Amino acid sequence: MTAAAQDERLARATLTYLAEPGDPWLAALVRECGAPRAVAAVREGRFPAGSQPGGGGRPALRAIERWRVRLGEVPQAGDLARLRDHGIRLLCPGDPQWPAGLAALADGEPYALWLRGAMPDLADACRRSVAIVGSRAATAYGSYVAAEMAATLAARGWTVVSGGAYGIDGCAHRGALAGSGVSIAVMACGVDRHYPAGHTQLLDAVAAGGAIVSEWPPGRSPTRIRFLVRNRVIAAMTGGTLVIEAGRRSGALNTARHARDLCRPLMAVPGPVTSDLSAGCHSVIRDWNGVLVTGADDVIECLSSDAGIPRAGHGRDPAVVADTASAAVPPADTAAGTSQARDALDREAYAVLDALPARGGMSTGDLSVRSGLTPGVVLGKLAMLTVGGFAERTDTGWKASRRAKT
Amino acid sequence: MTAAAQDERLARATLTYLAEPGDPWLAALVRECGAPRAVAAVREGRFPAGSQPGGGGRPALRAIERWRVRLGEVPQAGDLARLRDHGIRLLCPGDPQWPAGLAALADGEPYALWLRGAMPDLADACRRSVAIVGSRAATAYGSYVAAEMAATLAARGWTVVSGGAYGIDGCAHRGALAGSGVSIAVMACGVDRHYPAGHTQLLDAVAAGGAIVSEWPPGRSPTRIRFLVRNRVIAAMTGGTLVIEAGRRSGALNTARHARDLCRPLMAVPGPVTSDLSAGCHSVIRDWNGVLVTGADDVIECLSSDAGIPRAGHGRDPAVVADTASAAVPPADTAAGTSQARDALDREAYAVLDALPARGGMSTGDLSVRSGLTPGVVLGKLAMLTVGGFAERTDTGWKASRRAKT
Repeated sequence: MTAAAQDERLARATLTYLAEPGDPWLAALVRECGAPRAVAAVREGRFPAGSQPGGGGRPALRAIERWRVRLGEVPQAGDLARLRDHGIRLLCPGDPQWPAGLAALADGEPYALWLRGAMPDLADACRRSVAIVGSRAATAYGSYVAAEMAATLAARGWTVVSGGAYGIDGCAHRGALAGSGVSIAVMACGVDRHYPAGHTQLLDAVAAGGAIVSEWPPGRSPTRIRFLVRNRVIAAMTGGTLVIEAGRRSGALNTARHARDLCRPLMAVPGPVTSDLSAGCHSVIRDWNGVLVTGADDVIECLSSDAGIPRAGHGRDPAVVADTASAAVPPADTAAGTSQARDALDREAYAVLDALPARGGMSTGDLSVRSGLTPGVVLGKLAMLTVGGFAERTDTGWKASRRAKT
Repeated sequence: MTAAAQDERLARATLTYLAEPGDPWLAALVRECGAPRAVAAVREGRFPAGSQPGGGGRPALRAIERWRVRLGEVPQAGDLARLRDHGIRLLCPGDPQWPAGLAALADGEPYALWLRGAMPDLADACRRSVAIVGSRAATAYGSYVAAEMAATLAARGWTVVSGGAYGIDGCAHRGALAGSGVSIAVMACGVDRHYPAGHTQLLDAVAAGGAIVSEWPPGRSPTRIRFLVRNRVIAAMTGGTLVIEAGRRSGALNTARHARDLCRPLMAVPGPVTSDLSAGCHSVIRDWNGVLVTGADDVIECLSSDAGIPRAGHGRDPAVVADTASAAVPPADTAAGTSQARDALDREAYAVLDALPARGGMSTGDLSVRSGLTPGVVLGKLAMLTVGGFAERTDTGWKASRRAKT
């Protein structure tokens, strides 16, 4: 690594200590003069000659003052080496492992990402990835669906990204591990912190095959605002965001909004309208044009299609099935084989089938009256129904076979 | 009533006995030469001079033969009077009480409708009406939602139309009655039949304040094909169709397709993705652009807006709520008053609030480091938080008030 590259890395690491992620002043400063000169400017307490982010003036100076508050916390070169010994790496924009999707955060791209875990290539893992987010107070239903879908997605080679929290997040990570897949937890605190404490084992398991990732430097605690800031990274680094259970005020909806604003596929799992924890999901589908998904297949289809544009009238047509099916026999009562054969019947054959008695026998004349078809047509359809196993001849006429009544 | 009008009524009543509803040949014949001459043609076994529906030929003659099969069942003038004595009326296209929406069934408008019940004006009742349809094997969830929504809609003056079947249909009718509203059951059999037998009381209750309606003449039995044919009338006479629980092969999806084809508002209630009986509803929302509704308010909004066109990005914006809400505190833990006040906080006030300890006290200098804000800003925000009841001064500095942690 060249000395300049090393300077760049150290500067970016320093920036994660000095400023909260997504700081628009710092982003402007780094864009204008690069990370090393931005750090130097903070140390000196004034902007580089000729550089006046946001037109300069008092707000810009207040920003510098804000960053200087944390100058005492910045690491030295040796500190980074020590962190590396503890399995904590630094990724910077431009690194081959930097997830491509983060570039979409035009003004708020992370200064750098801290990473702990065995994952060899974060960029590669994010290429086929999905964010699974939702309420921390998940119900048994949401927990089951999250684990199930994450397991299937992971088993099919999709990286499951979530926030490491209780509830849906935890179920998504656990499901991914159960599916022998790769998972990434994006934290609102340092990657060395186990937050929440109850997920210490789970986070270590995620790290063992995947990654714990954060914009904040090691040691930092999670705060409310940091969860919200973190959410934009979850939305940006993944191929799409799936919401499974979220109340109307859930932080998961914040992640969902980032996904929408970034034009990434946005999906939600519906649930009972009687459950407050599905209200947010229904809002995503109804008010944000989120795609309603009911299983991993739907998710993969959505992620593989044109970036989340709702498909109007595409795909399956329920009426094609419903129209040919029996309207009066509940599906549960219908053996699959019979119903498939029945789908092949035309309207007139149906009418004859309906007219047939279950017992005894009926003449073709009576069948004609009952079905409203001519005797000739009735005879033709009876032949077809007999071959299909739906009708049979008795001593006194025609009756429906047992199969027809199943 | 003029003699011609009486002839027309008797002819249309006769047609309901001769042919199955929606017969395209008969519709063409009636369009060409009117109902009385159509009936005469059937009696004579040949088309009127100059009239050749569908270009005439063998298929047209076969249609006439089909209708002649039931000539022995047609009523006499006295029969209609007798039916009237039993509370059964006949409605014909052109009658003031004829529901306007049925005209949309261009080629398959009913020849007439048979009606039993106290409802004074069917057309008026249909002006603010909604079809509620769904599975006969409904779950407790679907049954509850159907009854609840029907009751609210009925109480607000909307007529609830359904098919009188077990399951969702029955719950919709019962809900409407419970809401002291008006209900209509559209049958696939004669209006004098109580089908299913278990709904004898319910159907009589529906008739007592509303109507039992059918295209089939009194006495006719329901058959599978008749349920499907009947469904187009449910979709056409109402302002929109709402599906509550439907399997992938449910007959309710057939009604839904008619509503879609007629460009009527089409709505569905989502449910657990683990329930087969919600699969059809999810298909309606996802594949047919049906509107996801979660309550009676949604239904009324949909019925009152531009005919069922899915509203993209309209209405509530969940992120507006989610963004300002706490991401780390589950909604259930948040008192409404506190959360409203908290919504008024800006990002910096949030950062200070997050930095405040729950016990003891912290200096403004430490708060500055922890929040990443200058000491001056921290002091300003602390003043605001104190006034808002979120922060308080202690002997050793600042701490969060109890209210802030709820």
